[in-house]
Amino acid sequence: MRMKIDVTLDYGLESPGPALLLVEAAGVQGQILNRASIDLGQPLKSARVPGEEGIGERLILRLEDSLTCRYSAEVEVTRPQPDLQRLSAVEVEDMPGDALRYMLPSRYCPAERFGHFVASRFEGLTGGPLVAALRDWVERNLDYVSGASDGDTTAADTFLDRRGVCRDYAHLMISLCRAAQIPARIASVYAPPVDPQDFHAVVQVYLDHDWHLVDPTGMARADQMALVAVGRDATDVAFLTTTSVAELKTQLVEVSEV
Amino acid sequence: MRMKIDVTLDYGLESPGPALLLVEAAGVQGQILNRASIDLGQPLKSARVPGEEGIGERLILRLEDSLTCRYSAEVEVTRPQPDLQRLSAVEVEDMPGDALRYMLPSRYCPAERFGHFVASRFEGLTGGPLVAALRDWVERNLDYVSGASDGDTTAADTFLDRRGVCRDYAHLMISLCRAAQIPARIASVYAPPVDPQDFHAVVQVYLDHDWHLVDPTGMARADQMALVAVGRDATDVAFLTTTSVAELKTQLVEVSEV
Amino acid sequence: MRMKIDVTLDYGLESPGPALLLVEAAGVQGQILNRASIDLGQPLKSARVPGEEGIGERLILRLEDSLTCRYSAEVEVTRPQPDLQRLSAVEVEDMPGDALRYMLPSRYCPAERFGHFVASRFEGLTGGPLVAALRDWVERNLDYVSGASDGDTTAADTFLDRRGVCRDYAHLMISLCRAAQIPARIASVYAPPVDPQDFHAVVQVYLDHDWHLVDPTGMARADQMALVAVGRDATDVAFLTTTSVAELKTQLVEVSEV
Amino acid sequence: MRMKIDVTLDYGLESPGPALLLVEAAGVQGQILNRASIDLGQPLKSARVPGEEGIGERLILRLEDSLTCRYSAEVEVTRPQPDLQRLSAVEVEDMPGDALRYMLPSRYCPAERFGHFVASRFEGLTGGPLVAALRDWVERNLDYVSGASDGDTTAADTFLDRRGVCRDYAHLMISLCRAAQIPARIASVYAPPVDPQDFHAVVQVYLDHDWHLVDPTGMARADQMALVAVGRDATDVAFLTTTSVAELKTQLVEVSEV
Repeated sequence: MRMKIDVTLDYGLESPGPALLLVEAAGVQGQILNRASIDLGQPLKSARVPGEEGIGERLILRLEDSLTCRYSAEVEVTRPQPDLQRLSAVEVEDMPGDALRYMLPSRYCPAERFGHFVASRFEGLTGGPLVAALRDWVERNLDYVSGASDGDTTAADTFLDRRGVCRDYAHLMISLCRAAQIPARIASVYAPPVDPQDFHAVVQVYLDHDWHLVDPTGMARADQMALVAVGRDATDVAFLTTTSVAELKTQLVEVSEV
Repeated sequence: MRMKIDVTLDYGLESPGPALLLVEAAGVQGQILNRASIDLGQPLKSARVPGEEGIGERLILRLEDSLTCRYSAEVEVTRPQPDLQRLSAVEVEDMPGDALRYMLPSRYCPAERFGHFVASRFEGLTGGPLVAALRDWVERNLDYVSGASDGDTTAADTFLDRRGVCRDYAHLMISLCRAAQIPARIASVYAPPVDPQDFHAVVQVYLDHDWHLVDPTGMARADQMALVAVGRDATDVAFLTTTSVAELKTQLVEVSEV
Repeated sequence: MRMKIDVTLDYGLESPGPALLLVEAAGVQGQILNRASIDLGQPLKSARVPGEEGIGERLILRLEDSLTCRYSAEVEVTRPQPDLQRLSAVEVEDMPGDALRYMLPSRYCPAERFGHFVASRFEGLTGGPLVAALRDWVERNLDYVSGASDGDTTAADTFLDRRGVCRDYAHLMISLCRAAQIPARIASVYAPPVDPQDFHAVVQVYLDHDWHLVDPTGMARADQMALVAVGRDATDVAFLTTTSVAELKTQLVEVSEV
Repeated sequence: MRMKIDVTLDYGLESPGPALLLVEAAGVQGQILNRASIDLGQPLKSARVPGEEGIGERLILRLEDSLTCRYSAEVEVTRPQPDLQRLSAVEVEDMPGDALRYMLPSRYCPAERFGHFVASRFEGLTGGPLVAALRDWVERNLDYVSGASDGDTTAADTFLDRRGVCRDYAHLMISLCRAAQIPARIASVYAPPVDPQDFHAVVQVYLDHDWHLVDPTGMARADQMALVAVGRDATDVAFLTTTSVAELKTQLVEVSEV
């Protein structure tokens, strides 16, 4: 599947300072960047560093009073949609350090607290079938409500509030997976079916010695996603991190199949 | 400085399962391992993966009903005590990705919430002198009280409760540093002056393009510490992580200058 | 039903100061105090004030370095066990202020957060049948585990952790009831079937223009309870509140049918 | 001082249901209601119950799809501004139950956590002089920032965030007073100097056997306030409580000296 991505960001900043930007489709296996261009206006300075796990790149910008970004790309997605039912769990002693890390609790994913719930509600399931059941539970039990959560909302909050947006769905599913000793991390992606179109957050689970993309909101399939970045939770994959207060003027994400 | 480290752990486990152990002094610049040995009894299986940032190693153990560990080592510490007053801040656009990561909030270090306090209380300070002032503030305003905190205690809690143990001191200082855009991470160490002797947690700050060890409890100097592991916060450097309930039988840490 | 109550408390105090004690069976409709005596040793000063809603009495003690209390009573319980299925909800505009107050969230009972869960899971039920269903859900989904909670544990925590002690059961059921606009408050009681014997916390719900005792742990019936005090949550009915750190030496609660 | 109060509320409701309204100046000592009128449009049903401590009245309304309220009153305030420096603390054993209640922690005021801070920072002070020092500390250390807090913000949050609105100032000062064993409660008031004009929240402290109004934002004096209601914290004195989502159309508060 081939998709066209166009992003326009225009923010005013209360005071000069640095910003992190994480919006470019990553050059990784499973997707081919046919073309990509980014125009960042006139930052005072800029630099690039690799994203978490070497996936994608963080753009560091030193800004004066505004941030502008025009990003345009065409990505061909070659990865298949995983068949979770056929994937098996990896024993912890066979995991690389890069997977092990994603079994631990993190800021928005207090996984250790979900142990009792997962053990009693999903008894008997393991590996991919368990992940599929966890994904289904999250989709069935949450309502997608914009504005129902904010930057402090953890998976523990979402478990109680029963609503949220894509990052809340992702945090809850990640927490459930980790509670079941299945490595899980957040992934920011572009995907044409996301409605309304926006930056999107989904889950990567580690099964059968590889990472697999799963969308607990049910909006997109793995073969419809262009991967931007991964991390422990939303902290690591925020498309924009600033120290100054940033005032939104324009934020436009357009993703379409071509 | 040369130190001798002897650790004895003996835990009973409620049910079989995996465990992570992170107790060995790391092979890193600034310290030389003269000798080291570890005896883990008879785990069903075991494996080793690198710790965070490739520092130290996590031991993965698959256990039946108990964990035993005898670790013994002699370490020569060659790193100097940093003179914080002479170290300058690194501009964010000059930071490597491995430092940038430690400017972000994490589970126990909700750094974004400390911005107002740091900006108003420590106005005008930057770089090493600011880090020194933050370190002093933490030491002066906290009381070291065993049992005053637990595995849920964040730096926000400690800021209010004004007491805690070494990990709480570390989390609070890390949060203050990150709020000031100075990368800071937790470091687990052995240090002879720690009283009572135990696993110890301190802070590493990124100044002048390098990481520097600082102990906000004031118990140890950088040239008295054998580094074990680093990470975003206590989640990453716990000496023992189990999924089963672990019952402590023996936990003995002996560290002495030789 | 007639019960004999014997309580022995013996605490050491780190520093002199006041304490609140709330351990005496209340003189209220539904129970008759055949006899009652309390020996508080030698407090520097003492006073009595009414408990919340005029039910029971708080003992104020000014203490030096210890608290001792011997309380002994015989209570005849005459209230019947309510048949929840036959009780109907009271319209909010018909509620007295004393009931209305117990529809609001409180410290341990963030009731407003349970609205979505209650509305979707218990759709169609009202009044007593709804209360019965909420009570059953709490009993079925929680495990009674001593030490699994502490003085910071809210009903939101318990909803996730799925375990706790009597006060956690009570806080969760209270939160669910209030989320359904049914006034609910905590009640501290003595009850012979409680095992192991201890101070016990249950729920009072306001249905059919009266308050009814319900035990979400399933350990006791309303006709087996001697009521001590009521309140918004555990804050109001703690058997002992001190400002100094109190060290437990003896705490013995014996309740038996006679 | 005489003041004129005019309040206009106009809300749309997502679904029919009950609402609590708490906007009328109370008939209490220290203020005389020269005239008062309230027009609530056409609620399906309505009732009145006393507010907390019998101060003021809660209006219970059963609404269809909107809430409208026009409240107009003229109040003569006769209470003097208290001279905190001359007021002494009341011993806990001399307190009535109605004061004792306000020494306990509550939902937004986790007072027990402020004990260490108050004891170390305000050592040696008691009674009115301590209250004055706590009031001054809150005013000096917080910034008044609209939108910096929300309905979940506790005094522990505000202590860290260092900013908020009147209710946050009040919650923090209440928590500090209770931590010092001085009964303190929230009071909702009208006061002409409040800028921008709005419902206002201040603190009542119990000193010298009476309650005294204190405004930690520094905007109003006790002799400039018309008291509406009191309670443990904002939960008890919200001007509007609904179960349905309420959409603000008009909310106008005009208070002027006449």
